Amino acid sequence: MDEEVERIAEDIESMKIRGAGRIARAAASALAITARKSSATSSEEFVGEMLDAARRLIATRPTAVSLPNSVRFVVKRLREGSKARLSLGSLKEHVIEASEILIEGSEQAVTRIGEYGSKMIEEGDTVMTHCNSSAALEIIKTAHKQGKKIKVYATETRPLFQGHITSQILSKEGIDVSLICDNAVRFFISKIDKVIVGADAIAANGALINKIGTSLVALAAKEVAIPFIVGAETIKFSPETIVGELIKIEERPWSEVINPEILRNIGKISVRNPSFDVTPPEYIDMIVTEKGVIPPQGSIQILEENYGWMTPEELFIL
Amino acid sequence: MDEEVERIAEDIESMKIRGAGRIARAAASALAITARKSSATSSEEFVGEMLDAARRLIATRPTAVSLPNSVRFVVKRLREGSKARLSLGSLKEHVIEASEILIEGSEQAVTRIGEYGSKMIEEGDTVMTHCNSSAALEIIKTAHKQGKKIKVYATETRPLFQGHITSQILSKEGIDVSLICDNAVRFFISKIDKVIVGADAIAANGALINKIGTSLVALAAKEVAIPFIVGAETIKFSPETIVGELIKIEERPWSEVINPEILRNIGKISVRNPSFDVTPPEYIDMIVTEKGVIPPQGSIQILEENYGWMTPEELFIL
Amino acid sequence: MDEEVERIAEDIESMKIRGAGRIARAAASALAITARKSSATSSEEFVGEMLDAARRLIATRPTAVSLPNSVRFVVKRLREGSKARLSLGSLKEHVIEASEILIEGSEQAVTRIGEYGSKMIEEGDTVMTHCNSSAALEIIKTAHKQGKKIKVYATETRPLFQGHITSQILSKEGIDVSLICDNAVRFFISKIDKVIVGADAIAANGALINKIGTSLVALAAKEVAIPFIVGAETIKFSPETIVGELIKIEERPWSEVINPEILRNIGKISVRNPSFDVTPPEYIDMIVTEKGVIPPQGSIQILEENYGWMTPEELFIL
Amino acid sequence: MDEEVERIAEDIESMKIRGAGRIARAAASALAITARKSSATSSEEFVGEMLDAARRLIATRPTAVSLPNSVRFVVKRLREGSKARLSLGSLKEHVIEASEILIEGSEQAVTRIGEYGSKMIEEGDTVMTHCNSSAALEIIKTAHKQGKKIKVYATETRPLFQGHITSQILSKEGIDVSLICDNAVRFFISKIDKVIVGADAIAANGALINKIGTSLVALAAKEVAIPFIVGAETIKFSPETIVGELIKIEERPWSEVINPEILRNIGKISVRNPSFDVTPPEYIDMIVTEKGVIPPQGSIQILEENYGWMTPEELFIL
Amino acid sequence: MDEEVERIAEDIESMKIRGAGRIARAAASALAITARKSSATSSEEFVGEMLDAARRLIATRPTAVSLPNSVRFVVKRLREGSKARLSLGSLKEHVIEASEILIEGSEQAVTRIGEYGSKMIEEGDTVMTHCNSSAALEIIKTAHKQGKKIKVYATETRPLFQGHITSQILSKEGIDVSLICDNAVRFFISKIDKVIVGADAIAANGALINKIGTSLVALAAKEVAIPFIVGAETIKFSPETIVGELIKIEERPWSEVINPEILRNIGKISVRNPSFDVTPPEYIDMIVTEKGVIPPQGSIQILEENYGWMTPEELFIL
Amino acid sequence: MDEEVERIAEDIESMKIRGAGRIARAAASALAITARKSSATSSEEFVGEMLDAARRLIATRPTAVSLPNSVRFVVKRLREGSKARLSLGSLKEHVIEASEILIEGSEQAVTRIGEYGSKMIEEGDTVMTHCNSSAALEIIKTAHKQGKKIKVYATETRPLFQGHITSQILSKEGIDVSLICDNAVRFFISKIDKVIVGADAIAANGALINKIGTSLVALAAKEVAIPFIVGAETIKFSPETIVGELIKIEERPWSEVINPEILRNIGKISVRNPSFDVTPPEYIDMIVTEKGVIPPQGSIQILEENYGWMTPEELFIL
Repeated sequence: MDEEVERIAEDIESMKIRGAGRIARAAASALAITARKSSATSSEEFVGEMLDAARRLIATRPTAVSLPNSVRFVVKRLREGSKARLSLGSLKEHVIEASEILIEGSEQAVTRIGEYGSKMIEEGDTVMTHCNSSAALEIIKTAHKQGKKIKVYATETRPLFQGHITSQILSKEGIDVSLICDNAVRFFISKIDKVIVGADAIAANGALINKIGTSLVALAAKEVAIPFIVGAETIKFSPETIVGELIKIEERPWSEVINPEILRNIGKISVRNPSFDVTPPEYIDMIVTEKGVIPPQGSIQILEENYGWMTPEELFIL
Repeated sequence: MDEEVERIAEDIESMKIRGAGRIARAAASALAITARKSSATSSEEFVGEMLDAARRLIATRPTAVSLPNSVRFVVKRLREGSKARLSLGSLKEHVIEASEILIEGSEQAVTRIGEYGSKMIEEGDTVMTHCNSSAALEIIKTAHKQGKKIKVYATETRPLFQGHITSQILSKEGIDVSLICDNAVRFFISKIDKVIVGADAIAANGALINKIGTSLVALAAKEVAIPFIVGAETIKFSPETIVGELIKIEERPWSEVINPEILRNIGKISVRNPSFDVTPPEYIDMIVTEKGVIPPQGSIQILEENYGWMTPEELFIL
Repeated sequence: MDEEVERIAEDIESMKIRGAGRIARAAASALAITARKSSATSSEEFVGEMLDAARRLIATRPTAVSLPNSVRFVVKRLREGSKARLSLGSLKEHVIEASEILIEGSEQAVTRIGEYGSKMIEEGDTVMTHCNSSAALEIIKTAHKQGKKIKVYATETRPLFQGHITSQILSKEGIDVSLICDNAVRFFISKIDKVIVGADAIAANGALINKIGTSLVALAAKEVAIPFIVGAETIKFSPETIVGELIKIEERPWSEVINPEILRNIGKISVRNPSFDVTPPEYIDMIVTEKGVIPPQGSIQILEENYGWMTPEELFIL
Repeated sequence: MDEEVERIAEDIESMKIRGAGRIARAAASALAITARKSSATSSEEFVGEMLDAARRLIATRPTAVSLPNSVRFVVKRLREGSKARLSLGSLKEHVIEASEILIEGSEQAVTRIGEYGSKMIEEGDTVMTHCNSSAALEIIKTAHKQGKKIKVYATETRPLFQGHITSQILSKEGIDVSLICDNAVRFFISKIDKVIVGADAIAANGALINKIGTSLVALAAKEVAIPFIVGAETIKFSPETIVGELIKIEERPWSEVINPEILRNIGKISVRNPSFDVTPPEYIDMIVTEKGVIPPQGSIQILEENYGWMTPEELFIL
Repeated sequence: MDEEVERIAEDIESMKIRGAGRIARAAASALAITARKSSATSSEEFVGEMLDAARRLIATRPTAVSLPNSVRFVVKRLREGSKARLSLGSLKEHVIEASEILIEGSEQAVTRIGEYGSKMIEEGDTVMTHCNSSAALEIIKTAHKQGKKIKVYATETRPLFQGHITSQILSKEGIDVSLICDNAVRFFISKIDKVIVGADAIAANGALINKIGTSLVALAAKEVAIPFIVGAETIKFSPETIVGELIKIEERPWSEVINPEILRNIGKISVRNPSFDVTPPEYIDMIVTEKGVIPPQGSIQILEENYGWMTPEELFIL
Repeated sequence: MDEEVERIAEDIESMKIRGAGRIARAAASALAITARKSSATSSEEFVGEMLDAARRLIATRPTAVSLPNSVRFVVKRLREGSKARLSLGSLKEHVIEASEILIEGSEQAVTRIGEYGSKMIEEGDTVMTHCNSSAALEIIKTAHKQGKKIKVYATETRPLFQGHITSQILSKEGIDVSLICDNAVRFFISKIDKVIVGADAIAANGALINKIGTSLVALAAKEVAIPFIVGAETIKFSPETIVGELIKIEERPWSEVINPEILRNIGKISVRNPSFDVTPPEYIDMIVTEKGVIPPQGSIQILEENYGWMTPEELFIL
């Protein structure tokens, strides 16, 4: 393993490099470095070197989402080039170019999402958002910067009150924000023109995995037939779901929900704290990605373009 | 005004007598006392005395719900008797009997609701409840006492966390309770067999006015087609809605939602805190009252039986 | 037949007396006159006289709606009194009182509907209405007179453009009106807070029969979950539907839809012009009557109170 | 116990008297006989005698539906009369009249349902029916006798193939019948104008309990928004559901579903055979009773008229 | 700029060339001419020349839809070839071929749509159409020419009565047409087997932008679960919506809706006249294009094939 | 025609080779043999030979589904290679490779579907299946082999009782199976976590054509919002539907539905026996193919990848 690549791997491992986008870009650049420095004398040898680096990188953070996707993106193009029997030189170039495309795309992703999504916000719109998503907020902030007068309802987002951060960010931009309890979503929904949220992951059938409560907001939005818009970088789309994997819904500590002392008073009960829920595609009007706006069912097209129809062996073992 | 009656009025005024049921019964008994002690020599005089007492009672707590309904219940029968030209003696008797019917009905109401509603809970059922309603809890507790093995999901019910009290009450009965954030309602709904909630008021068209978030739970229940059951004493049915009055949704202090210090950090935002929402009748499968189980649209039948088709003049001025 | 009664019958026949409310009141007063002037010496004879008058009145305008309903209202009470073996004097009184109740109710009906319905319009509401209904307009005008700032979208209501009249009436009151094509209903529906329409008839199951296009507006309102409110005098509720009669949907002349010259140019086509359509009860939130606000399914309760469970023989032959 | 009454009780017990309608009428006539022959000298004594007879009758067939309802109908009027302090003579008369009303209503019930329901079938209609209901078939046959050209799709109704009997009955009347598998219901539903079925029971909230598969037909009808009409004598409405009782869904022998030999070949599996299912009121457009056509939610009104708001004690112990 | 190309540009500008298809083909042929006549000596120079011509063409009619799409189609292939470093000769060929593909596709588009769509019309079908779309009518006419017996309901399509033209066209073909008011759509929908309409534009998420009222017809069709089919040339699919642009809904003069004189009589009202509305993808069963039949969500696949994932810079500045 | 190829054709013709997968693979291998043995001296000649073989193969079983799709898959790549002006050698290689891809994909298809689909079954799930599909059963069996405790409800699937075979297969694997009448689907649906069925064909818009009754199960699953999952090899996706062809729904003999003797007793009725029905894409959550899991609307993407946008001429005449 090249030292520079190893250093990147360790920085990801030690969480020195963090954040979905930053990790994705670091992994891609490690692969580009591997390619550039390779002294392989045959395509086969080169492919071997690249897969070694890929495996090393993926192993650093087994539960990250953007990390394996970034590696898969580059490795897919490596395999294609290899299968097309590109010369060693062309193959390297092809791989390096793939890394650059991913890096560039990732760097611009949130800005592009802000740009595309903001056009769908109209003068005078009232927007509801749930939790605290940089993609969703970028859409709102961009629309505000375009001079559109907008109003935002931010849910407090129990149990961790991410709505407080959302309120703070928007308020600092000078945007008119109202903070509400999650329970009040349906009460206010008739005043809302659009709902805009982010994504933790998008499944192959277009389902959205996002902060607990998102699917309730989506249900309320569907009842009054207003657009429910998701901002999501394509790196969030999950190729594992193509081969049938379900996205695991983590259950987080009960102490996020209730103070131990209060719990003691209540007596013997259980406290359940799932952190995400699944919003089915029929409740989603569009997903704004850095490539463009798609219907939720377009998820499979994005996945196919980025990763092809990988088998589980290709997806996980590389 | 008779002294005893005046004392009851003052006790209601000073909140010495409190609780929807207790107030209702006190008012009815004050009217019965008025009737018993009346020295009127003609029916006209007697009606006048009764209406004076009625007005005095209603004036004590202008925003209570059960108070005017209790008075209206008795006065309706006073008017009917008067219109039917009952003799003075019969009229008094008729009024006293009306008071007794109301008092007896009110005393047994929650027990009867528990008895009727519990029969609809089946062995092994998992029930979700929202907020903390004595009628809803009576149904659950009665089913538990019948030896049925049941499991309850209680929402925490922001902003005031009434779900903690609900959890405590049920846990003390030995019922298996899981406390969840309101946001997790749709996540857990596929495990739920029935939703059971209480009522702040029932409108003439069968709509339910209840703690904020109730209508979101109802929406989630509707999506998976499970029964959404309301426990409500008939005294909660609102005759004002027959003449078009909307039930006012109180907005409570923002400090229930957020701590002032946290708010200061967030910056300039508004905090909205409506305390109730409206669940439309099409999301309600049945309402369990002390008279019996009815479809939500049966509300108008209950109202008509209890109060007749009063005009606004009759309803408010008496 | 008494001369005065005969004169009323002729005035209805010759359309000297017209308008649903006026006809209903004339018929009831003719029955009261019959009762007052009756020289019958037995209850049987009196009932015979009354039924003769009833038949004579109904025969005057076989297709009117309010006419037979008014007569049925009085005759129902005649039969009840006769069955209860009231003395001849009491029976007369009973009948006369029934007539007076109907007349008084009818006189106040539109005003009461305006009063009750207007309370459901809130400050700042935008209302959509279809066709030109005095009950619906009374609701809107009353709300406006209460000082509420409201805005109205009036559909033009092809083929006869009754929306022009609606616009004129509301505009004269100083209400902000926008006239739109019927086709634009769904385009504007997201700006609408409530839909308010009138009724030609209400069926036993709560279905609304009203001007063609009403059910499309209801469908659009349902899609965005806003209240769809019907203003309807109880005389419009159809007891025939209790015994299974379908309300006939008249097809009116094609010349209302298209100019003969234009038709000639088009060539050989058929032009269909049904004048009413049926809005199912699940699209109706409430019906505002002069007795009070009811859910559509409360229709059967209104019908039972006014007419009882008549057999077809009782309904049509009297 | 009077001998004649005892004989009737025994005939019901031994199933010499059978059929929901016949049993109901026999029970009512036994009560009338009891009243007529009573030698009681006070109202109290008379009430005691009547209740004894009522209990004897109900005990004959504990699971019948029409039997207790018939008895309850008469006893309700007995109690009312007693509470109104009618003279002994009047009380007897009142009870006898109640029995006669029930008997007459029951005798005419199916015919009246046929008469009312048939008016809702239009020339050229295609009707679907499930299982074999005399009320539903009476509607179809009456429409056919009125000269309307109709076509019927009859489901075969597994497991017992009651659709064969339905097909035979209709075919004998000269009606155009197509027999289909239950699985083909949705395939043919777009050709259907109305669905008409019978009822085993109607619950207080308007839900229909009927032959297994009925609710699937209702779901298919709802998807294409065609009327789903139920023919049901009022004696089928269940007053037990007012006090929260669930209607028991009997599970019948597996041998109705599969031949023992075939089952042996298949191996170790379980066979489930519930005989009824529950159709929720929102899938029912109207219920045709012998009193008239009602919305499903009108069930509570029918029940209240027939039985009042009985407590469980009144309902079951009498 | 080549003279011939300039002439084409001017002819588009002066509307000498008009009609979406004709403009698209003229623009593509102008680009082919530019390529053929190019004397560029390097690929870079050639690309520059082509982009100049593309910009000139697009500038001629800033609001046309098919014009920029045609140019984008060719320029996309120019860019791809340039990026793939094709030789100058191959690049020219590539561009010319792209133009020819577009022209040929456009020429055959309506015929192919007629061919494909007609297969979905079955013998005896009754079809509803709204407004006057050549693609929709081609489907109907082709089915008719195949000897299928069909019946058409044409809405009059207020405010401009394009339904008259539709009726005329179909009537001339010998097709059985009924003209109805837009208000009667839901009245007749139960007689309809399929709805077929055209498109002004198709958005990236599959939404249809078409003549005002289209979405109401779609809603009515959805209620009874009949297929709602759109005929749309792929040139109508809007790549702008990929980058978030909303399709502008033009509001046309009030004088289309109401005669000035009538308006004067009515008084001070506003008249609103939006010309299009948006039908969401969930109300569309399929879109028939000249490439084939797709689900509405297949829109993104069509757009990606024709234009790739362009950035706004690439889309608008070229 | 090569002898070996001719023999394969005859074996398909005579049904010596049968089963969708086996036929598809035989046809592809016949094309590979044709390519390998070809003595053509030019690409044109080679294409001619290949098309002759293709036509011969397709003619053997005009109604099979997998046969023409297999041939189209190879011929598409032949045409592409020919259009790309590959050398004769490369063209042959290209065609042979295409055959091999198809064969390999087909061999692994059911296993892959089992692998991918099984991951979506969770510990403790209760699954419903209809009819007897190898793809659906593979999913269930694979999940069982993974050690997950699952329970299956199998519908009997009238008229041919394929549910008996399904029960037998699953029971042999040791899976807990309950057999139910098709009528009981909605009764048990609230106990079901997922529905899994197979496919006879998938249309371009994502609609599923499968055994009669499938769409009723889908409707019941939709009502309670549980996943409805289809297992389908990509060879089942129908490219004919791209050009508008409707999939013919075969009506099978009435004798499958009823015994002639029973029918004779019933009298003159018709018996209808359609063998498939169409489940619209909005009732399908995902389709599990051997390539991966897709939303139903991803059907068009699969079809485009496998067959491109063929014209009817290309699809049917080759």
